[in-house]
Amino acid sequence: MNDSGEKGAPRGATAPHEGSQERGRVRVVIENVTPRVDGGQFPIKRVIGEAVEVEADVFADGHDRVAAQLLHRHEQTSEWTSVPMQPLGNDRWRARFTVDTLGRYFYTVQGWVDHYATWQRDLARKRAAGQDVSVDLLRAQELQPQPDPAIVLEHDTVLQVTVDRERARFSSWYELFPRSASNIAGKHGTFRDCIARLPYIAEMGFDILYLPPIHPIGTSKRKGPNNASDARSGDPGSPWGIGGAEGGHKAIHPELGSLKDLQDLITAAQSRGMELALDIAFQCSPDHPYVREHPEWFRKRPDGTIQYAENPPKRYQDIYPFDFETDAWRALWEELCSVVEHWAEQGIRIFRVDNPHTKPFGLWQWLIARIKRAYPETIFLSEAFTRPKVMYRLAKVGFTQSYTYFAWRNTRAEIESYFTELTQTPVREFFRPNLWPNTPDILPEHLQFGGRPAFVARAALAATLGASYGIYGPAFELLEHEAREPGSEEYRDSEKYQLRHWDLKRPDSLKDFLARLNRIRRDNRALQSDWSLRFHATDNELLVCYSKSTEDRSNIVLAVVNLDPRFPQSGWLTLDLAALGLDPDTSYQVHDLLSGARFLWRGARNYIALDPHHSPAHVFVVRHRARTEKDFDYFL
Amino acid sequence: MNDSGEKGAPRGATAPHEGSQERGRVRVVIENVTPRVDGGQFPIKRVIGEAVEVEADVFADGHDRVAAQLLHRHEQTSEWTSVPMQPLGNDRWRARFTVDTLGRYFYTVQGWVDHYATWQRDLARKRAAGQDVSVDLLRAQELQPQPDPAIVLEHDTVLQVTVDRERARFSSWYELFPRSASNIAGKHGTFRDCIARLPYIAEMGFDILYLPPIHPIGTSKRKGPNNASDARSGDPGSPWGIGGAEGGHKAIHPELGSLKDLQDLITAAQSRGMELALDIAFQCSPDHPYVREHPEWFRKRPDGTIQYAENPPKRYQDIYPFDFETDAWRALWEELCSVVEHWAEQGIRIFRVDNPHTKPFGLWQWLIARIKRAYPETIFLSEAFTRPKVMYRLAKVGFTQSYTYFAWRNTRAEIESYFTELTQTPVREFFRPNLWPNTPDILPEHLQFGGRPAFVARAALAATLGASYGIYGPAFELLEHEAREPGSEEYRDSEKYQLRHWDLKRPDSLKDFLARLNRIRRDNRALQSDWSLRFHATDNELLVCYSKSTEDRSNIVLAVVNLDPRFPQSGWLTLDLAALGLDPDTSYQVHDLLSGARFLWRGARNYIALDPHHSPAHVFVVRHRARTEKDFDYFL
Repeated sequence: MNDSGEKGAPRGATAPHEGSQERGRVRVVIENVTPRVDGGQFPIKRVIGEAVEVEADVFADGHDRVAAQLLHRHEQTSEWTSVPMQPLGNDRWRARFTVDTLGRYFYTVQGWVDHYATWQRDLARKRAAGQDVSVDLLRAQELQPQPDPAIVLEHDTVLQVTVDRERARFSSWYELFPRSASNIAGKHGTFRDCIARLPYIAEMGFDILYLPPIHPIGTSKRKGPNNASDARSGDPGSPWGIGGAEGGHKAIHPELGSLKDLQDLITAAQSRGMELALDIAFQCSPDHPYVREHPEWFRKRPDGTIQYAENPPKRYQDIYPFDFETDAWRALWEELCSVVEHWAEQGIRIFRVDNPHTKPFGLWQWLIARIKRAYPETIFLSEAFTRPKVMYRLAKVGFTQSYTYFAWRNTRAEIESYFTELTQTPVREFFRPNLWPNTPDILPEHLQFGGRPAFVARAALAATLGASYGIYGPAFELLEHEAREPGSEEYRDSEKYQLRHWDLKRPDSLKDFLARLNRIRRDNRALQSDWSLRFHATDNELLVCYSKSTEDRSNIVLAVVNLDPRFPQSGWLTLDLAALGLDPDTSYQVHDLLSGARFLWRGARNYIALDPHHSPAHVFVVRHRARTEKDFDYFL
Repeated sequence: MNDSGEKGAPRGATAPHEGSQERGRVRVVIENVTPRVDGGQFPIKRVIGEAVEVEADVFADGHDRVAAQLLHRHEQTSEWTSVPMQPLGNDRWRARFTVDTLGRYFYTVQGWVDHYATWQRDLARKRAAGQDVSVDLLRAQELQPQPDPAIVLEHDTVLQVTVDRERARFSSWYELFPRSASNIAGKHGTFRDCIARLPYIAEMGFDILYLPPIHPIGTSKRKGPNNASDARSGDPGSPWGIGGAEGGHKAIHPELGSLKDLQDLITAAQSRGMELALDIAFQCSPDHPYVREHPEWFRKRPDGTIQYAENPPKRYQDIYPFDFETDAWRALWEELCSVVEHWAEQGIRIFRVDNPHTKPFGLWQWLIARIKRAYPETIFLSEAFTRPKVMYRLAKVGFTQSYTYFAWRNTRAEIESYFTELTQTPVREFFRPNLWPNTPDILPEHLQFGGRPAFVARAALAATLGASYGIYGPAFELLEHEAREPGSEEYRDSEKYQLRHWDLKRPDSLKDFLARLNRIRRDNRALQSDWSLRFHATDNELLVCYSKSTEDRSNIVLAVVNLDPRFPQSGWLTLDLAALGLDPDTSYQVHDLLSGARFLWRGARNYIALDPHHSPAHVFVVRHRARTEKDFDYFL
């Protein structure tokens, strides 16, 4: 097999008629193999245990029967496994395989004119018509069930699957600034404080604890509270202003503790079922050692100074971006990759990557592939908030998960169209959405003005629309909603620039609600993946209704959310019963896992009323059949 | 430029991250270049004078401006012409070029980060914000409007256009059996009789005269009238039973005349603006010289006889198909190609190919490319009535025009969905439909039972829905409608097996109607292409309404057809005025080119009534503006 699968690129690239000249006896053609990203240029994504359902158009000239098979193999074996493909009609064929090993799989399709099957079919037809088949029977000897290799066509592209662990698909992130983790107001938090905070986070049920950059912070042009351009002495600066006298991207900010403390945090988190995620932010403070040691990695201005970050007229003089067009780009890429390798060697297997869309796509493709070759379980979350094609490209080149536009999708129409695009189109083959109602950079207007009902509704949406979601806490669970100024999405007194002291025991905390949501997510496999998402009609635009179900429909979750944080909203749902596998003539039970309430429904149309001040959401589990009189022993 | 355009295949095929490793300074990416057939595996089609509008997603990381250009060249030059692409928003770019030479064009896209434009934009923003730009101005010296080649990305695929002459897009075919062209009943017609018939055909306005195979006809197993299995002496046999003692595919059936007669027919047709099309039917009668000279080109049955054509339980013992899986396939291909070359050398430039779907796709791709290299003006019409993907594949591999399912598309829903697929989806890039209401093999039930109104409606539909259409005459204009038996689409007493004598002067002939239709087609450029086709809503399912217009909307044709051959139908149209470029508040005139009637309409909703026994169709030309009082000199 002419396998360029190692490169993940279209192979062959033979001119069709030249190929035909060489292999004129091949009569079958193969078209439109799916799934496939950009013609096979990029791998599709799966997690262990998932299936890859492969389809292709396979046909030949004339009346002869054709046959097709799917070939697949893990990168660590050279042996292909074949699966016969089944015809679906209209020349379309299908087969599936399941991935059970981390790393990369390859798959492709073969087809051929099946003379043996053709002969069998024709023989049966002739016999049915009472024709003499004596000569046909003689052909049996020259025909073989196995095809002549000279008439077998291999598809000219070997396609790829990247196989991740399950957490790549199903994860609940909690973002925490260690600097504010101290129980003592005004004291800089440490990794040890984070360890002390773990029970609180574990009780809420999150399984990834993500820390903003933990490296030394520059002092030159350091920003003060609320992004003030001149920090006062004692201001901690932004963790994203990476690099100081104490070191750069491989060093730890001394005020957070030691590498040993970090290791202890990793271990302590693991013991509570949580995994630590670090931040990869490839940029430097003016004090970063790279600036001195590798001036060739930065752009010089004509006056000899180093170009700071800018998006005119905005200036970020505390940040020096790398110049990725430097002639020294190879050394730069190697060094950046070594940063990730360094933390991988410390045991970190999840990275949230800061602004990947301001670094070349080629860098990420190369770096992620290299890291995953050594550590195939690694998860990279792309923190790109930019234009859709840029976000998708980052996912194509290798990011495991991606931030989304969820924070700005508030109306039913917005939610339905966006999540249908993400979960019901080929985008889902490469883009795994991660839904954040807030981040340290994004306090959406909905949360600024919607009060507690908005927080509850947005958390419920994030946790049920997205198999992966995250919150920036404790700001989220403590309902932090003050913006720096009107029209801004920046938090007032943001932890990005100062320490904060949080009252975790506030009675209005959403802690218990988040714990319930995460418990529901763990208990209901339907919520642990996104592809089954279906929206259902409602006659009130402020009510959004959707379901997720397992493939065997043994678990169906139906969510209804009132998008209006002020007023009670009511209306009629029209459920797509076929999508839910429900019989229109049989009662079924919906059990609200948030309130505990149960309702008996029948048919597609059902009434809903949600008071946001009581609960803006139902998260129902659907039980196929309610008990009826027929369940009594004596009924029959 | 790494140009594998000569092969029309994806070039490069470099693994993405390997490419990145080699060209790490390239930050731009190019995705989703259109138009493109199967990832660039096949050429798109155009005729001389048409535009290729190329779009691509071009973007880079970060905030920098990018630029993109389209490159194109004709195959006969190695010089690329570049056209700057314009941004359409959402990272999409567009440019167009016009093709003006027969043969093949190549096109691709380049993109780069435009540092000069970025600098200009940023400078303007800084100035607008009142910032000091003195250092920025110094950068002007190091920046050049021309990009550094090291940061320019070429798309990894060179795409192809096949450029045909205009008749490939706009053609009116008339199929005629020369055997029945004699004015004397019972006498075998000749090419000379065809010459005598030319004025009749020219008066109807057809521009292609297509003759079924003109070769010697086998006598072994010859079929008699109505496909009787034993021909009587004197039965002429089927013209598709090719090959006899007098020769094979390069010979002329003696009863039709000589090669000189054929040459005269070609010349005489040309003098009347018509072009002769011949039939290519790659199959043999048992008497074909190939059977004796090249038994290796046929499949032997185990009893030593040659395998006749069959589709069990049907047998076609008068036909020997070629065995395209023969080891001698190269010689067979060469010989078949030489058949087409032979007739091309006689001046034939249009071939209607019989059942191409029973010969390998690879053969056609190779053969058509080879013929068109020598004779780029050649037109190949694919007579494939088979499954959709097979028909589309034949168009992809090179057929210029294709028969369609038109004969079986009778309801409004069928017509709208099928012709929307053909004209408004990427299918149109490679598939040029040719609409036949009848053929010698297809007398649709609609014509069997619909009477004259059905013939008129089907002709009007074919001639206005399709820039290319054809009829099998004189059966069509003489309303021939008797099937061989109930449930059959075969003509009774078909010319395929016997001579017919046609009364061309019958008063009910559709000759004048067809002449009017063809005149309308010639006079209205809107009808000479298919891409502008738009359907308009009607409130009566038996009325179908559609329009075609030139790109500048200087010519708009609006057709309304009553699909019911029995009863008058009326209803309201709701025209898509925007698609027609009509102002909703200004009157416009619709002028029925069939009846001569004129109507003044205003707005989208207009009433239509069509009595099929009077005329089942309107073919309106739309005149943008009716005269009003404002047209008088004294009005102002």
